[in-house]
Amino acid sequence: MKVLITTVPFANKNKLPLQLLENNGIAYLINPLNKKLTEDELVNMVTDFDVIIAGTEQITAKVMDKAKNLKMISRVGIGLDSVDLLTARDRGIVVSYTPDAPAPAVAELTIGIMLTLLRSAHVSNSQMHFGQWHRFFGRRLSKVTIGIIGVGRIGQGVLEHLKGFDNPKILVNDVLIKEDVQNKFNVEWVEKEQIYTQADVITLHLPLTSETKNMIQKDHLLSMKSDAMIINTSRGGIINEQDLYNVMKSGHLSGASIDVFVNEPYNGPLKEIERCLLTAHMGSMSIDCRTRMEIEATEEAVRFLTGQPLEGAVPEEEYAVQREGL
Amino acid sequence: MKVLITTVPFANKNKLPLQLLENNGIAYLINPLNKKLTEDELVNMVTDFDVIIAGTEQITAKVMDKAKNLKMISRVGIGLDSVDLLTARDRGIVVSYTPDAPAPAVAELTIGIMLTLLRSAHVSNSQMHFGQWHRFFGRRLSKVTIGIIGVGRIGQGVLEHLKGFDNPKILVNDVLIKEDVQNKFNVEWVEKEQIYTQADVITLHLPLTSETKNMIQKDHLLSMKSDAMIINTSRGGIINEQDLYNVMKSGHLSGASIDVFVNEPYNGPLKEIERCLLTAHMGSMSIDCRTRMEIEATEEAVRFLTGQPLEGAVPEEEYAVQREGL
Repeated sequence: MKVLITTVPFANKNKLPLQLLENNGIAYLINPLNKKLTEDELVNMVTDFDVIIAGTEQITAKVMDKAKNLKMISRVGIGLDSVDLLTARDRGIVVSYTPDAPAPAVAELTIGIMLTLLRSAHVSNSQMHFGQWHRFFGRRLSKVTIGIIGVGRIGQGVLEHLKGFDNPKILVNDVLIKEDVQNKFNVEWVEKEQIYTQADVITLHLPLTSETKNMIQKDHLLSMKSDAMIINTSRGGIINEQDLYNVMKSGHLSGASIDVFVNEPYNGPLKEIERCLLTAHMGSMSIDCRTRMEIEATEEAVRFLTGQPLEGAVPEEEYAVQREGL
Repeated sequence: MKVLITTVPFANKNKLPLQLLENNGIAYLINPLNKKLTEDELVNMVTDFDVIIAGTEQITAKVMDKAKNLKMISRVGIGLDSVDLLTARDRGIVVSYTPDAPAPAVAELTIGIMLTLLRSAHVSNSQMHFGQWHRFFGRRLSKVTIGIIGVGRIGQGVLEHLKGFDNPKILVNDVLIKEDVQNKFNVEWVEKEQIYTQADVITLHLPLTSETKNMIQKDHLLSMKSDAMIINTSRGGIINEQDLYNVMKSGHLSGASIDVFVNEPYNGPLKEIERCLLTAHMGSMSIDCRTRMEIEATEEAVRFLTGQPLEGAVPEEEYAVQREGL
């Protein structure tokens, strides 16, 4: 039984995931290219392996065609946009994931980004490292309207942290109205369009689906306040990258923060926009959350390979999302 | 009656302070050099004025020697290190300040900086703008020990925001043990040395006095954990800048954030240290707090010039700090 670990870095801060495999006599290979794999790179690497402990690389029908022994995909993380779930099911490939582990790290980073954008601290830092001094005016969280699209695990984490910030006005939207969120937090449930036009800081906590891909395009961005700010720590492509570049280049929006990209590693035009805070898909990269994700995904692979019941099998609604193009 | 406004920018986002002066028939001049004034620049500018609405420039005996008509200094902000209070008193010059107004803005920025440092978001942003992709590991607030030196208005604001972050371990120190802080927040009161050696993130919320000037030098920095982080949004010079540079250059400390400098505008060696987040004295620069500071300081000047009782006169203990070199 052989496991391919595609996601990197892996077991960098904590060796337990590798020890779990070794203790169970399971052979493994960590992605020797040490970067997010393209479909073709994965096709060339995947032969013979029984299990993939996977990052966000595309695991398509073409990959599965080549992976004759593949019986299980264990995703390190929550997003399933990269896995063709329906093809996997057709071929009897089990898919598990770790939906809870990344949330605390993403939620914290999002608050840090909000405060940074509101005060232009990222722009001042860039300028000061070039010897330029400009005192930027900013705004406080409690004085702005915050729009949160997607109030699942991560969006609710953001709401939890916002409790310490003196009651800002918060608009939320999700595909389903969630009464527990309305009861637990002081929020106003609105249409997405209201968030676009009324919020000062907009943050997305959504999965990438056929509904959310390119959800925010030029017209949506232009409908936002000229000094609004938008944050995407969820999945690349939910905001159209080229549209965001064009709109910001024209002077619209006072800031943006993008942690996730259509193609990673990203090296595209947004790097020209000084007020666009760019980070390298680091939302879940706190040591504790990353370690938890790796351990949970590895434990699940070990359970599968040792015939124990799974604990993180992807639920039926995720298959429905892909089947119905939701 | 003529007012010199030295602090810049002034009335940039809200014209009310200037209207207050105009409505009361008070002539004013806004610092035409549009930068923080040196002592000599202020000496050359200050003749004839009755009141200074002041920033953080040095208002020394030499300045007061030249300012024959000066009767009042109204500080926009909380720090009084820049004003020679004892000489002012000797010459019958009244000094007022706005101690409450800046606190919310500084406290919010401090939380944003903590989260940024913990995740190396500032470093990733710099690298991504040069087309480099590296996924940094980070830590979460709730998993680290936070050390707060100074728990006055701003330090308590920081504590308030930290309530939304799942109970991190917090060590605090102040010149006086404050029972209300201990009752209100889940903190451990310790010696400064314990904060240096035990905290992962250290933040300073102190006035600049003869006691706090150069309070943190090479040996203190070296006593901190090698991956600790230190934040100064209070006053330049409390951490020795050259020592911080040398220590970080040697590889010690995983991050730092400096918003305040001995000489501002700052253009010194810390700009070489990529993991040192630098901002241009922007702690109080939220529109709401800055506006409140300017209005309060201007109202106080108007009160003085129209013979009404003052509301922001500097209390006796601030004179004692300078008299006793505390």
